[in-house]
Amino acid sequence: MYQQIADVIRSQIDTGQLAPGAKLPTEAELREEYGVSRETVRKALGLLVNEGLVVSARPQGHFVRRRQPMVFRPQAEFRERPYTPEMDAFVTEYSAEGREPRQEIEVAIVEPPADVAKRLRLEPGELVAVRKRVRYLDGEPFNTNDSYFPLSIVRDSEIMRPENITRGANEVLADLGYRQVRALDELYVRMPVPDEVHRLDLGPGTPVGVHLTTGFTEKGKPVRVAITTLPGDRHVVSYERRWEAPDGEA
Amino acid sequence: MYQQIADVIRSQIDTGQLAPGAKLPTEAELREEYGVSRETVRKALGLLVNEGLVVSARPQGHFVRRRQPMVFRPQAEFRERPYTPEMDAFVTEYSAEGREPRQEIEVAIVEPPADVAKRLRLEPGELVAVRKRVRYLDGEPFNTNDSYFPLSIVRDSEIMRPENITRGANEVLADLGYRQVRALDELYVRMPVPDEVHRLDLGPGTPVGVHLTTGFTEKGKPVRVAITTLPGDRHVVSYERRWEAPDGEA
Repeated sequence: MYQQIADVIRSQIDTGQLAPGAKLPTEAELREEYGVSRETVRKALGLLVNEGLVVSARPQGHFVRRRQPMVFRPQAEFRERPYTPEMDAFVTEYSAEGREPRQEIEVAIVEPPADVAKRLRLEPGELVAVRKRVRYLDGEPFNTNDSYFPLSIVRDSEIMRPENITRGANEVLADLGYRQVRALDELYVRMPVPDEVHRLDLGPGTPVGVHLTTGFTEKGKPVRVAITTLPGDRHVVSYERRWEAPDGEA
Repeated sequence: MYQQIADVIRSQIDTGQLAPGAKLPTEAELREEYGVSRETVRKALGLLVNEGLVVSARPQGHFVRRRQPMVFRPQAEFRERPYTPEMDAFVTEYSAEGREPRQEIEVAIVEPPADVAKRLRLEPGELVAVRKRVRYLDGEPFNTNDSYFPLSIVRDSEIMRPENITRGANEVLADLGYRQVRALDELYVRMPVPDEVHRLDLGPGTPVGVHLTTGFTEKGKPVRVAITTLPGDRHVVSYERRWEAPDGEA
Protein backbone atom coordinates (compact mmCIF):
# COMPACT_ATOMS: atom_id res chain seq x y z
CA MET A 1 0.00 0.00 0.00
CA TYR A 2 2.77 2.47 0.90
CA GLN A 3 4.35 1.76 -2.47
CA GLN A 4 1.12 2.67 -4.24
CA ILE A 5 0.98 5.98 -2.39
CA ALA A 6 4.62 6.61 -3.30
CA ASP A 7 3.83 5.73 -6.95
CA VAL A 8 1.09 8.35 -7.08
CA ILE A 9 3.25 11.09 -5.59
CA ARG A 10 6.22 10.09 -7.77
CA SER A 11 4.16 10.37 -10.91
CA GLN A 12 2.83 13.77 -9.77
CA ILE A 13 6.47 14.86 -9.47
CA ASP A 14 7.37 13.35 -12.87
CA THR A 15 4.60 15.15 -14.67
CA GLY A 16 5.26 18.43 -12.91
CA GLN A 17 1.89 18.46 -11.16
CA LEU A 18 4.03 18.74 -8.04
CA ALA A 19 6.73 21.21 -9.06
CA PRO A 20 10.26 21.43 -7.65
CA GLY A 21 10.07 23.08 -4.23
CA ALA A 22 6.33 22.35 -3.85
CA LYS A 23 5.06 21.26 -0.45
CA LEU A 24 3.56 17.78 -0.28
CA PRO A 25 0.26 17.19 1.52
CA THR A 26 0.80 16.75 5.28
CA GLU A 27 0.90 13.31 6.89
CA ALA A 28 -2.59 13.91 8.25
CA GLU A 29 -3.90 14.86 4.80
CA LEU A 30 -2.34 11.78 3.22
CA ARG A 31 -3.80 9.53 5.94
CA GLU A 32 -7.22 10.99 5.27
CA GLU A 33 -6.88 10.81 1.47
CA TYR A 34 -5.79 7.17 1.35
CA GLY A 35 -7.47 5.94 4.52
CA VAL A 36 -4.24 4.46 5.87
CA SER A 37 -2.23 4.49 9.10
CA ARG A 38 0.39 7.02 10.05
CA GLU A 39 3.03 4.32 9.65
CA THR A 40 2.00 3.60 6.05
CA VAL A 41 2.19 7.30 5.18
CA ARG A 42 5.62 7.55 6.77
CA LYS A 43 6.90 4.55 4.85
CA ALA A 44 5.67 6.07 1.57
CA LEU A 45 7.38 9.38 2.33
CA GLY A 46 10.54 7.60 3.51
CA LEU A 47 10.74 5.74 0.21
CA LEU A 48 10.56 8.98 -1.77
CA VAL A 49 13.19 10.57 0.47
CA ASN A 50 15.52 7.62 -0.15
CA GLU A 51 14.94 7.93 -3.87
CA GLY A 52 16.08 11.52 -3.61
CA LEU A 53 12.79 12.88 -4.96
CA VAL A 54 11.54 14.45 -1.74
CA VAL A 55 13.23 16.26 1.13
CA SER A 56 12.00 16.19 4.69
CA ALA A 57 12.21 19.58 6.40
CA ARG A 58 10.65 19.19 9.79
CA PRO A 59 8.62 20.72 11.24
CA GLN A 60 7.47 22.36 7.99
CA GLY A 61 6.83 19.08 6.16
CA HIS A 62 7.97 17.38 2.98
CA PHE A 63 8.94 19.15 -0.24
CA VAL A 64 9.72 18.16 -3.81
CA ARG A 65 13.46 18.26 -4.19
CA ARG A 66 14.69 21.24 -6.12
CA ARG A 67 17.60 20.53 -8.40
CA GLN A 68 19.80 23.41 -9.42
CA PRO A 69 22.69 21.63 -11.00
CA MET A 70 25.98 23.28 -11.70
CA VAL A 71 27.61 22.34 -14.99
CA PHE A 72 30.89 20.49 -14.48
CA ARG A 73 32.70 20.67 -17.80
CA PRO A 74 36.02 18.80 -17.69
CA GLN A 75 36.94 19.94 -21.21
CA ALA A 76 37.09 23.55 -19.98
CA GLU A 77 40.46 22.68 -18.46
CA PHE A 78 42.13 22.45 -21.86
CA ARG A 79 39.92 24.87 -23.73
CA GLU A 80 37.88 27.51 -22.01
CA ARG A 81 35.40 28.40 -24.72
CA PRO A 82 32.96 25.71 -25.88
CA TYR A 83 33.41 24.36 -29.40
CA THR A 84 29.75 24.37 -30.28
CA PRO A 85 26.82 26.78 -30.04
CA GLU A 86 24.89 23.98 -28.31
CA MET A 87 27.34 23.81 -25.40
CA ASP A 88 27.38 27.60 -25.19
CA ALA A 89 23.60 27.64 -24.86
CA PHE A 90 23.59 24.73 -22.45
CA VAL A 91 26.12 26.27 -20.08
CA THR A 92 24.30 29.59 -20.15
CA GLU A 93 20.98 27.93 -19.38
CA TYR A 94 22.28 25.84 -16.51
CA SER A 95 24.77 28.10 -14.86
CA ALA A 96 23.03 29.67 -11.93
CA GLU A 97 23.38 33.41 -12.00
CA GLY A 98 24.69 35.36 -9.09
CA ARG A 99 25.99 32.48 -7.06
CA GLU A 100 29.11 33.27 -5.11
CA PRO A 101 31.92 30.73 -5.44
CA ARG A 102 34.48 30.30 -2.69
CA GLN A 103 37.01 27.58 -1.98
CA GLU A 104 39.04 26.24 0.91
CA ILE A 105 42.44 24.82 0.05
CA GLU A 106 44.64 22.51 2.08
CA VAL A 107 48.00 21.16 0.93
CA ALA A 108 49.64 18.04 2.34
CA ILE A 109 52.40 15.57 1.62
CA VAL A 110 50.99 12.06 1.91
CA GLU A 111 51.40 8.45 0.93
CA PRO A 112 49.28 8.09 -2.18
CA PRO A 113 45.98 6.18 -2.04
CA ALA A 114 46.24 2.95 -4.07
CA ASP A 115 44.17 4.23 -7.00
CA VAL A 116 46.34 7.36 -7.25
CA ALA A 117 49.65 5.47 -6.98
CA LYS A 118 48.59 3.15 -9.76
CA ARG A 119 47.55 5.93 -12.14
CA LEU A 120 50.70 7.99 -11.47
CA ARG A 121 52.78 4.80 -11.83
CA LEU A 122 54.63 5.57 -8.60
CA GLU A 123 57.35 3.45 -7.08
CA PRO A 124 56.58 1.89 -3.68
CA GLY A 125 57.29 4.48 -1.00
CA GLU A 126 57.10 7.45 -3.37
CA LEU A 127 55.15 10.34 -1.86
CA VAL A 128 52.69 12.76 -3.42
CA ALA A 129 51.63 16.33 -2.81
CA VAL A 130 47.87 16.75 -2.60
CA ARG A 131 45.86 19.94 -2.93
CA LYS A 132 42.47 19.34 -1.31
CA ARG A 133 39.79 21.84 -2.17
CA VAL A 134 36.20 22.19 -1.01
CA ARG A 135 34.22 24.48 -3.28
CA TYR A 136 31.26 26.42 -1.93
CA LEU A 137 28.47 28.23 -3.71
CA ASP A 138 26.46 30.69 -1.66
CA GLY A 139 28.04 29.21 1.45
CA GLU A 140 26.95 25.64 0.65
CA PRO A 141 29.54 22.95 -0.10
CA PHE A 142 29.20 22.00 -3.75
CA ASN A 143 31.99 19.61 -4.50
CA THR A 144 35.45 18.51 -3.42
CA ASN A 145 38.51 18.33 -5.62
CA ASP A 146 41.69 16.55 -4.55
CA SER A 147 44.62 16.92 -6.94
CA TYR A 148 47.66 14.68 -6.53
CA PHE A 149 51.14 15.34 -7.96
CA PRO A 150 54.34 13.31 -7.66
CA LEU A 151 56.24 15.08 -4.88
CA SER A 152 59.52 14.75 -6.78
CA ILE A 153 58.16 17.08 -9.48
CA VAL A 154 56.36 19.77 -7.51
CA ARG A 155 58.36 19.90 -4.27
CA ASP A 156 59.71 23.42 -4.75
CA SER A 157 56.82 24.92 -6.71
CA GLU A 158 53.87 27.12 -5.79
CA ILE A 159 51.69 24.00 -5.94
CA MET A 160 52.84 23.44 -2.36
CA ARG A 161 51.24 26.67 -1.12
CA PRO A 162 47.71 26.44 0.29
CA GLU A 163 46.32 29.28 -1.76
CA ASN A 164 44.72 29.76 -5.12
CA ILE A 165 47.06 29.52 -8.12
CA THR A 166 45.76 32.19 -10.48
CA ARG A 167 47.35 30.80 -13.63
CA GLY A 168 46.34 27.26 -12.64
CA ALA A 169 48.34 24.27 -11.44
CA ASN A 170 48.60 23.00 -15.01
CA GLU A 171 50.63 26.05 -16.04
CA VAL A 172 52.92 25.49 -13.06
CA LEU A 173 53.48 21.90 -14.20
CA ALA A 174 54.19 23.16 -17.73
CA ASP A 175 56.81 25.59 -16.40
CA LEU A 176 58.41 22.70 -14.53
CA GLY A 177 58.75 20.88 -17.87
CA TYR A 178 55.69 18.67 -17.55
CA ARG A 179 53.02 20.16 -19.74
CA GLN A 180 49.91 17.97 -19.87
CA VAL A 181 48.82 17.48 -23.47
CA ARG A 182 46.10 14.93 -22.85
CA ALA A 183 43.97 13.46 -20.11
CA LEU A 184 41.96 10.33 -19.42
CA ASP A 185 38.71 10.84 -17.51
CA GLU A 186 36.88 8.17 -15.54
CA LEU A 187 33.51 8.69 -13.94
CA TYR A 188 32.11 6.39 -11.24
CA VAL A 189 28.66 6.50 -9.66
CA ARG A 190 28.19 5.30 -6.09
CA MET A 191 26.73 6.05 -2.67
CA PRO A 192 28.79 8.38 -0.50
CA VAL A 193 30.82 7.21 2.49
CA PRO A 194 30.16 8.96 5.84
CA ASP A 195 33.15 11.30 5.44
CA GLU A 196 31.68 12.57 2.16
CA VAL A 197 28.20 12.90 3.66
CA HIS A 198 29.76 15.10 6.32
CA ARG A 199 32.11 17.16 4.10
CA LEU A 200 29.44 17.80 1.47
CA ASP A 201 26.41 17.97 3.74
CA LEU A 202 24.54 15.31 1.76
CA GLY A 203 20.91 14.43 2.45
CA PRO A 204 19.47 10.89 2.25
CA GLY A 205 19.11 9.45 -1.25
CA THR A 206 22.02 11.51 -2.62
CA PRO A 207 24.56 9.47 -4.56
CA VAL A 208 27.80 10.98 -5.81
CA GLY A 209 29.65 11.00 -9.09
CA VAL A 210 33.39 10.56 -8.70
CA HIS A 211 35.30 12.10 -11.59
CA LEU A 212 38.89 10.98 -11.84
CA THR A 213 41.24 12.69 -14.30
CA THR A 214 44.77 11.58 -15.09
CA GLY A 215 46.89 14.12 -16.97
CA PHE A 216 49.75 13.01 -19.24
CA THR A 217 52.70 14.75 -20.85
CA GLU A 218 53.54 14.39 -24.55
CA LYS A 219 55.79 11.47 -23.66
CA GLY A 220 52.95 9.73 -21.82
CA LYS A 221 54.15 10.40 -18.30
CA PRO A 222 51.24 10.77 -15.83
CA VAL A 223 51.86 13.90 -13.74
CA ARG A 224 48.53 14.63 -12.06
CA VAL A 225 45.47 12.80 -10.77
CA ALA A 226 42.47 14.97 -9.87
CA ILE A 227 39.53 13.41 -8.04
CA THR A 228 36.34 15.48 -7.98
CA THR A 229 33.40 14.30 -5.87
CA LEU A 230 30.12 15.61 -7.25
CA PRO A 231 26.86 15.32 -5.26
CA GLY A 232 24.25 14.02 -7.72
CA ASP A 233 21.66 16.62 -6.77
CA ARG A 234 23.97 19.57 -7.50
CA HIS A 235 25.74 18.72 -10.74
CA VAL A 236 25.49 17.74 -14.33
CA VAL A 237 28.69 16.63 -16.02
CA SER A 238 28.83 17.70 -19.64
CA TYR A 239 31.05 17.03 -22.66
CA GLU A 240 31.07 18.08 -26.29
CA ARG A 241 31.97 15.61 -28.98
CA ARG A 242 32.75 16.13 -32.65
CA TRP A 243 32.51 13.61 -35.41
CA GLU A 244 35.69 12.96 -37.34
CA ALA A 245 35.55 11.62 -40.84
CA PRO A 246 37.33 8.29 -41.25
CA ASP A 247 40.77 8.59 -42.89
CA GLY A 248 40.48 9.32 -46.57
CA GLU A 249 37.00 10.80 -46.42
CA ALA A 250 36.26 14.47 -46.41
CA MET B 1 27.61 1.70 18.23
CA TYR B 2 26.33 0.19 14.94
CA GLN B 3 28.06 3.01 13.12
CA GLN B 4 31.36 2.15 14.76
CA ILE B 5 31.02 -1.47 13.67
CA ALA B 6 30.20 -0.30 10.15
CA ASP B 7 33.24 2.01 10.24
CA VAL B 8 35.55 -0.89 11.08
CA ILE B 9 34.19 -3.11 8.31
CA ARG B 10 34.19 -0.22 5.83
CA SER B 11 37.82 0.50 6.48
CA GLN B 12 38.67 -3.21 6.10
CA ILE B 13 37.02 -3.03 2.69
CA ASP B 14 38.85 0.21 1.80
CA THR B 15 42.24 -1.20 2.62
CA GLY B 16 41.56 -4.48 0.86
CA GLN B 17 41.80 -6.52 4.07
CA LEU B 18 38.32 -7.65 3.05
CA ALA B 19 38.66 -8.20 -0.70
CA PRO B 20 35.87 -7.95 -3.29
CA GLY B 21 33.70 -11.05 -3.03
CA ALA B 22 34.98 -11.92 0.48
CA LYS B 23 32.49 -13.23 3.00
CA LEU B 24 31.93 -11.04 6.06
CA PRO B 25 31.85 -12.60 9.55
CA THR B 26 28.42 -14.00 10.37
CA GLU B 27 25.93 -12.07 12.49
CA ALA B 28 26.72 -14.40 15.39
CA GLU B 29 30.46 -13.80 15.03
CA LEU B 30 29.97 -10.04 14.92
CA ARG B 31 27.73 -10.13 18.02
CA GLU B 32 30.41 -12.07 19.84
CA GLU B 33 33.27 -9.87 18.61
CA TYR B 34 31.65 -6.56 19.56
CA GLY B 35 29.48 -7.78 22.44
CA VAL B 36 26.34 -6.26 20.96
CA SER B 37 22.76 -7.28 20.21
CA ARG B 38 21.55 -8.91 17.03
CA GLU B 39 19.72 -5.70 16.20
CA THR B 40 22.90 -3.62 16.40
CA VAL B 41 24.73 -6.03 14.10
CA ARG B 42 21.87 -5.93 11.62
CA LYS B 43 21.81 -2.14 11.62
CA ALA B 44 25.56 -2.05 10.92
CA LEU B 45 25.21 -4.50 8.03
CA GLY B 46 22.14 -2.66 6.72
CA LEU B 47 24.10 0.58 6.61
CA LEU B 48 26.86 -1.02 4.54
CA VAL B 49 24.29 -2.57 2.20
CA ASN B 50 22.70 0.84 1.67
CA GLU B 51 26.10 2.34 0.96
CA GLY B 52 26.50 -0.28 -1.76
CA LEU B 53 29.64 -1.72 -0.17
CA VAL B 54 28.16 -5.04 0.92
CA VAL B 55 25.60 -7.39 -0.60
CA SER B 56 23.29 -9.59 1.42
CA ALA B 57 22.91 -13.07 -0.03
CA ARG B 58 20.78 -15.03 2.37
CA PRO B 59 21.09 -17.66 3.62
CA GLN B 60 24.83 -17.66 2.80
CA GLY B 61 25.53 -14.33 4.51
CA HIS B 62 27.02 -10.97 3.59
CA PHE B 63 29.73 -10.38 1.01
CA VAL B 64 31.92 -7.50 -0.10
CA ARG B 65 30.45 -6.16 -3.30
CA ARG B 66 32.41 -7.12 -6.36
CA ARG B 67 32.62 -4.42 -8.98
CA GLN B 68 33.34 -5.45 -12.52
CA PRO B 69 32.63 -2.27 -14.37
CA MET B 70 32.15 -2.15 -18.09
CA VAL B 71 33.71 0.84 -19.83
CA PHE B 72 31.09 3.11 -21.37
CA ARG B 73 32.95 5.29 -23.86
CA PRO B 74 30.63 7.80 -25.54
CA GLN B 75 33.40 9.00 -27.87
CA ALA B 76 33.51 5.57 -29.52
CA GLU B 77 30.36 6.56 -31.35
CA PHE B 78 32.20 9.05 -33.53
CA ARG B 79 35.59 7.37 -33.53
CA GLU B 80 36.06 3.75 -32.78
CA ARG B 81 39.76 3.65 -31.96
CA PRO B 82 41.01 5.58 -28.92
CA TYR B 83 43.21 8.60 -29.59
CA THR B 84 45.72 7.84 -26.88
CA PRO B 85 47.73 4.85 -25.68
CA GLU B 86 46.36 5.54 -22.20
CA MET B 87 42.75 4.97 -23.26
CA ASP B 88 43.80 1.89 -25.20
CA ALA B 89 45.38 0.44 -22.08
CA PHE B 90 42.48 1.48 -19.89
CA VAL B 91 39.85 -0.13 -22.09
CA THR B 92 41.88 -3.31 -22.35
CA GLU B 93 42.31 -3.49 -18.60
CA TYR B 94 38.67 -2.86 -17.78
CA SER B 95 36.84 -4.68 -20.52
CA ALA B 96 35.84 -8.01 -19.08
CA GLU B 97 37.00 -10.83 -21.30
CA GLY B 98 34.66 -13.48 -22.54
CA ARG B 99 31.42 -11.81 -21.55
CA GLU B 100 28.59 -12.43 -23.94
CA PRO B 101 26.66 -9.33 -25.00
CA ARG B 102 23.06 -9.56 -26.08
CA GLN B 103 20.35 -6.97 -26.51
CA GLU B 104 16.58 -6.74 -26.65
CA ILE B 105 15.13 -4.07 -28.92
CA GLU B 106 11.65 -2.57 -28.94
CA VAL B 107 10.51 0.18 -31.27
CA ALA B 108 7.55 2.44 -30.59
CA ILE B 109 5.96 5.66 -31.75
CA VAL B 110 5.26 7.83 -28.71
CA GLU B 111 4.67 11.32 -27.44
CA PRO B 112 8.11 12.53 -26.42
CA PRO B 113 8.97 12.90 -22.72
CA ALA B 114 9.43 16.58 -21.83
CA ASP B 115 13.24 16.41 -21.63
CA VAL B 116 13.40 14.80 -25.07
CA ALA B 117 10.94 17.22 -26.71
CA LYS B 118 12.95 20.14 -25.40
CA ARG B 119 16.28 18.84 -26.67
CA LEU B 120 14.87 17.90 -30.10
CA ARG B 121 13.11 21.29 -30.23
CA LEU B 122 9.85 19.61 -31.23
CA GLU B 123 6.58 21.41 -31.91
CA PRO B 124 3.70 20.62 -29.53
CA GLY B 125 2.03 17.39 -30.70
CA GLU B 126 5.02 16.21 -32.74
CA LEU B 127 5.71 12.51 -32.25
CA VAL B 128 8.97 10.61 -31.93
CA ALA B 129 10.17 7.13 -32.75
CA VAL B 130 11.97 5.46 -29.87
CA ARG B 131 14.27 2.45 -29.97
CA LYS B 132 14.43 0.98 -26.47
CA ARG B 133 17.24 -1.41 -25.84
CA VAL B 134 18.18 -3.47 -22.80
CA ARG B 135 21.74 -4.75 -23.02
CA TYR B 136 22.72 -7.94 -21.26
CA LEU B 137 26.12 -9.37 -20.43
CA ASP B 138 26.24 -13.04 -19.49
CA GLY B 139 22.47 -12.97 -19.15
CA GLU B 140 22.47 -10.07 -16.64
CA PRO B 141 20.93 -6.71 -17.56
CA PHE B 142 23.75 -4.18 -17.81
CA ASN B 143 22.20 -0.99 -19.04
CA THR B 144 19.28 0.44 -20.96
CA ASN B 145 19.50 2.72 -23.96
CA ASP B 146 16.51 4.61 -25.31
CA SER B 147 17.13 6.51 -28.54
CA TYR B 148 14.58 9.07 -29.72
CA PHE B 149 14.25 10.41 -33.28
CA PRO B 150 11.77 12.91 -34.75
CA LEU B 151 9.18 10.69 -36.40
CA SER B 152 9.01 13.00 -39.44
CA ILE B 153 12.62 12.13 -40.28
CA VAL B 154 12.78 8.38 -39.67
CA ARG B 155 9.23 7.26 -40.46
CA ASP B 156 10.12 5.16 -43.51
CA SER B 157 13.61 4.04 -42.49
CA GLU B 158 15.02 0.87 -40.97
CA ILE B 159 15.20 2.70 -37.64
CA MET B 160 11.53 1.67 -37.27
CA ARG B 161 12.38 -2.05 -37.30
CA PRO B 162 12.90 -3.75 -33.93
CA GLU B 163 16.15 -5.39 -34.87
CA ASN B 164 19.82 -4.56 -34.75
CA ILE B 165 21.03 -2.04 -37.36
CA THR B 166 24.44 -3.35 -38.35
CA ARG B 167 25.77 -0.10 -39.78
CA GLY B 168 24.29 1.86 -36.87
CA ALA B 169 21.36 4.25 -36.59
CA ASN B 170 23.70 7.19 -37.15
CA GLU B 171 24.54 5.97 -40.67
CA VAL B 172 20.84 5.63 -41.40
CA LEU B 173 20.30 9.23 -40.30
CA ALA B 174 23.22 10.30 -42.51
CA ASP B 175 21.66 8.55 -45.52
CA LEU B 176 18.43 10.39 -44.80
CA GLY B 177 20.34 13.67 -45.06
CA TYR B 178 20.86 14.24 -41.35
CA ARG B 179 24.45 13.34 -40.57
CA GLN B 180 25.34 14.13 -36.97
CA VAL B 181 28.61 16.00 -36.84
CA ARG B 182 28.61 16.83 -33.14
CA ALA B 183 26.96 15.86 -29.89
CA LEU B 184 26.37 17.32 -26.46
CA ASP B 185 26.57 14.87 -23.55
CA GLU B 186 24.99 15.36 -20.14
CA LEU B 187 25.50 13.03 -17.24
CA TYR B 188 23.25 13.00 -14.18
CA VAL B 189 23.69 10.96 -10.99
CA ARG B 190 20.62 9.91 -9.01
CA MET B 191 18.81 7.07 -7.28
CA PRO B 192 16.81 4.78 -9.56
CA VAL B 193 13.03 4.82 -9.77
CA PRO B 194 11.20 1.49 -9.21
CA ASP B 195 10.85 0.83 -12.95
CA GLU B 196 14.64 1.03 -13.33
CA VAL B 197 15.21 -1.13 -10.26
CA HIS B 198 13.03 -3.74 -11.93
CA ARG B 199 14.36 -3.47 -15.49
CA LEU B 200 18.00 -3.47 -14.39
CA ASP B 201 17.69 -5.79 -11.40
CA LEU B 202 19.33 -3.25 -9.06
CA GLY B 203 20.24 -4.11 -5.48
CA PRO B 204 19.93 -1.67 -2.55
CA GLY B 205 22.48 1.15 -2.48
CA THR B 206 22.86 1.17 -6.27
CA PRO B 207 22.52 4.64 -7.80
CA VAL B 208 22.46 5.15 -11.55
CA GLY B 209 24.23 7.43 -13.96
CA VAL B 210 21.94 8.81 -16.65
CA HIS B 211 23.84 9.70 -19.81
CA LEU B 212 21.95 11.89 -22.20
CA THR B 213 23.35 12.59 -25.66
CA THR B 214 21.89 15.02 -28.17
CA GLY B 215 23.22 14.68 -31.73
CA PHE B 216 23.29 17.66 -34.09
CA THR B 217 23.72 18.09 -37.83
CA GLU B 218 26.18 20.55 -39.35
CA LYS B 219 23.40 23.14 -39.40
CA GLY B 220 22.73 22.63 -35.70
CA LYS B 221 19.50 20.67 -36.03
CA PRO B 222 19.06 18.14 -33.20
CA VAL B 223 18.10 14.79 -34.72
CA ARG B 224 18.59 12.26 -31.95
CA VAL B 225 18.46 12.04 -28.16
CA ALA B 226 19.91 8.88 -26.62
CA ILE B 227 19.35 8.20 -22.92
CA THR B 228 21.54 5.50 -21.38
CA THR B 229 20.88 4.39 -17.82
CA LEU B 230 24.02 2.99 -16.22
CA PRO B 231 23.89 1.12 -12.89
CA GLY B 232 26.72 2.56 -10.79
CA ASP B 233 28.07 -0.83 -9.77
CA ARG B 234 28.51 -2.03 -13.35
CA HIS B 235 29.99 0.90 -15.26
CA VAL B 236 32.71 3.44 -15.54
CA VAL B 237 32.16 6.24 -18.03
CA SER B 238 35.38 7.31 -19.71
CA TYR B 239 36.51 10.13 -22.00
CA GLU B 240 39.77 11.18 -23.57
CA ARG B 241 40.71 14.83 -23.78
CA ARG B 242 43.45 16.56 -25.71
CA TRP B 243 44.97 19.90 -24.98
CA GLU B 244 44.74 22.45 -27.73
CA ALA B 245 47.19 25.31 -27.92
CA PRO B 246 45.54 28.72 -27.77
CA ASP B 247 45.30 30.46 -31.16
CA GLY B 248 48.64 31.70 -32.35
CA GLU B 249 50.72 29.33 -30.24
CA ALA B 250 52.28 26.17 -31.54
